Amino acid sequence: MLSSTTTWPIYRYNGMEILPQEDTIATEAPLTIKVDGEEFATLVYTPKDTVDLVTGFLASEGLIRFVDQIESLVLEEERGFAHVKLRHLHQLSRQMVSKRFIGSCCGKSRQFYFHNDARTAKTVSTKLQLSVRQCFHLMNQLQEQSSDFRATGGLHNAALCTADELLMSRSDIGRHNALDKIYGHLLRQRISVRDKVIAFSGRVSSEVALKAAKIGVGILLSKSAPTDLALRLAHDLGITVVGFIRRDQLAVYTHPQRIMDCR
Amino acid sequence: MLSSTTTWPIYRYNGMEILPQEDTIATEAPLTIKVDGEEFATLVYTPKDTVDLVTGFLASEGLIRFVDQIESLVLEEERGFAHVKLRHLHQLSRQMVSKRFIGSCCGKSRQFYFHNDARTAKTVSTKLQLSVRQCFHLMNQLQEQSSDFRATGGLHNAALCTADELLMSRSDIGRHNALDKIYGHLLRQRISVRDKVIAFSGRVSSEVALKAAKIGVGILLSKSAPTDLALRLAHDLGITVVGFIRRDQLAVYTHPQRIMDCR
Repeated sequence: MLSSTTTWPIYRYNGMEILPQEDTIATEAPLTIKVDGEEFATLVYTPKDTVDLVTGFLASEGLIRFVDQIESLVLEEERGFAHVKLRHLHQLSRQMVSKRFIGSCCGKSRQFYFHNDARTAKTVSTKLQLSVRQCFHLMNQLQEQSSDFRATGGLHNAALCTADELLMSRSDIGRHNALDKIYGHLLRQRISVRDKVIAFSGRVSSEVALKAAKIGVGILLSKSAPTDLALRLAHDLGITVVGFIRRDQLAVYTHPQRIMDCR
Repeated sequence: MLSSTTTWPIYRYNGMEILPQEDTIATEAPLTIKVDGEEFATLVYTPKDTVDLVTGFLASEGLIRFVDQIESLVLEEERGFAHVKLRHLHQLSRQMVSKRFIGSCCGKSRQFYFHNDARTAKTVSTKLQLSVRQCFHLMNQLQEQSSDFRATGGLHNAALCTADELLMSRSDIGRHNALDKIYGHLLRQRISVRDKVIAFSGRVSSEVALKAAKIGVGILLSKSAPTDLALRLAHDLGITVVGFIRRDQLAVYTHPQRIMDCR
């Protein structure tokens, strides 16, 4: 049985000093839903109430309308699989399964999820270092830039920064889109990422950590919380994650050598 | 040229009384990216910096590494299309395009997005009404229930409620997953949704509004902001959206007849 939270060693700045401590982190796990032996979708999720999730996902995607249409549902949570057998799957739904129409946010094929990311994400090595004061300064600049966010409250913001200043920012209703807009700008303007930082308003999920690695930045600053899968990827890919940057507090989750005064 | 924000008539409760006013809402638009004539993915996004988004998305998905690999990029923003021609698309990427591996959050085929949702979302009609006081009470109960959120800061919460009390809640790192867990629980326990309300911690995007309609609840309470596409869908599907429920303030965006004192 997987747990919905885990612990992680961090450095926390409390407004006065940086101290090592243990933090509680939300677990993020992949789950591949197989329907009648065929892969239907791979989600990332919080491993809790998994039968509810699979049942609701199948209904949301239009494969079932009533729970009786599920003949059996067997979980292999540790391996990340749910095996579903359906009764009387009608023709249109059968086509959906076999054509692998992937639905819902973050639902995609397992093959895509693992193979494509491994192909494009690269380990980041940069000697760039930031002070705690610089982290706060960049996050404050991000929030000042975000006029549409202040007007609507519905947008995520991402910014490309040097250690000292915000260079440009992009906003979108989609967390990943805001980062893709930064990535596109970098490529189009042929900007080197070696000495750059990304400041981000949203939570740091596995996909956000992977995007930072694909972009190639070594430091990711966020106002929000990370997941455990994001931290494991960031650790492996050489990315420093600094989260919960709010007022005069922050937490350093991975590769603390890039944040001065962490030891 | 599409705008990244729009206005919407709302009723706002300011702690004293409910007044009609205009609110600024984030725009949400679909964008289908076609690569060499074939559909690659359909995203929903904020229509701004679209060339950056398409370039970054192609790079994130591993189709390009440098901007020179894009031979041409033509936008039809009003119709929601981006037409990309690539130079020297290597074999693996070619397979990805033709096999329609759909990547990234909310990337799925346009056919899926429009056809499947139309098939499963249904118009909601319920005579249930809530007072402003009940809205605040249910949202407070949702926040009290969310122990993992308080510990990690990284989870979204959704709850199934009557007008007077929270019946059960589910949490997940994914906004949509939290709602699917509620949906699955409803189906498994054969609970009637006619007199129920969903309270939700996350933003109300088009997919969230569609999920509420699929589940069949008539009132959706959220701590956060909606998008314009979500509000248009909620309007068409008969769902009352109450957002920005914080402290003693809230906004009623659609079908205000279900919130007492709105007129």
